[in-house]
Amino acid sequence: MTLALGIDPGTAICGFGLVEAQSGRLRPVRFGAITTDKQWPAEERLAVIYDELTSLIKEYGPVMMAVEQLFFNRNVTTAMTVGQARGVILLAAAHRKIKVTEYTPLQIKQAVTGYGNATKEQVTFMIQRLLGIKEKPKPDDAADALAAAICALHFTGGG
Amino acid sequence: MTLALGIDPGTAICGFGLVEAQSGRLRPVRFGAITTDKQWPAEERLAVIYDELTSLIKEYGPVMMAVEQLFFNRNVTTAMTVGQARGVILLAAAHRKIKVTEYTPLQIKQAVTGYGNATKEQVTFMIQRLLGIKEKPKPDDAADALAAAICALHFTGGG
Repeated sequence: MTLALGIDPGTAICGFGLVEAQSGRLRPVRFGAITTDKQWPAEERLAVIYDELTSLIKEYGPVMMAVEQLFFNRNVTTAMTVGQARGVILLAAAHRKIKVTEYTPLQIKQAVTGYGNATKEQVTFMIQRLLGIKEKPKPDDAADALAAAICALHFTGGG
Repeated sequence: MTLALGIDPGTAICGFGLVEAQSGRLRPVRFGAITTDKQWPAEERLAVIYDELTSLIKEYGPVMMAVEQLFFNRNVTTAMTVGQARGVILLAAAHRKIKVTEYTPLQIKQAVTGYGNATKEQVTFMIQRLLGIKEKPKPDDAADALAAAICALHFTGGG
């Protein structure tokens, strides 16, 4: 049995998805999003993300964390803000001694659908099929986090 | 007496400067830089920064942290990396319940030299004068951190 924690980093919404692999079969353990209030100071929002993520890691004990490697075409302010969230996410992994793996969007699509140019809909469809989830995972950030976890299990031979 | 901790965020070199203000006079308490090895995984480097900063905060007990607000003209990868360092720095402040203040480069130059368009040399000269330091503070990141601390003390009426 291997348990992977996928993360879709963000300060307002940080998606997470815990996926278990056993004998080549995948099972969704828990998924959702940590949200923080835009009115709060940055450091308080980062503390909420770090603390909630640390609680999740303590409760479920995943052996690896998978984070999407982002390539922005957007402005540097966005990159800085997402970077801050990534900083505390990676720190939570380091403090709990979990292996961190990073994958490009291409690698994730490839691992989930077998096709690097898959659309968002195709990725969501395959996440639901692989995990046996009837409803579309919500929010989108949770779906992206599940995809990252599936990818990590795929590349490490767990799924 | 007010003690401020200035930070110049970075993953390879993170400058810090502790400055004390008493009756309008400034005193350098400690300054330097936390450095991390480029060969290490990102999460390990971030953990070193967080842990060393937390030790400094515990040892000296500053009441505020001052961080320069960066506006990049450079690429988004740099912004993301500096963002990750900023994330764990702000988290260290939040976990120790220290007030965080952010200042623009213009505000910092203004506070240190009285002149928003001051050159780097003028800023360094004034840092040395205000703090009574004979040698130029090394590395540059430590000097920038001291400037941020002086700025915070200036704006909060401490220096």
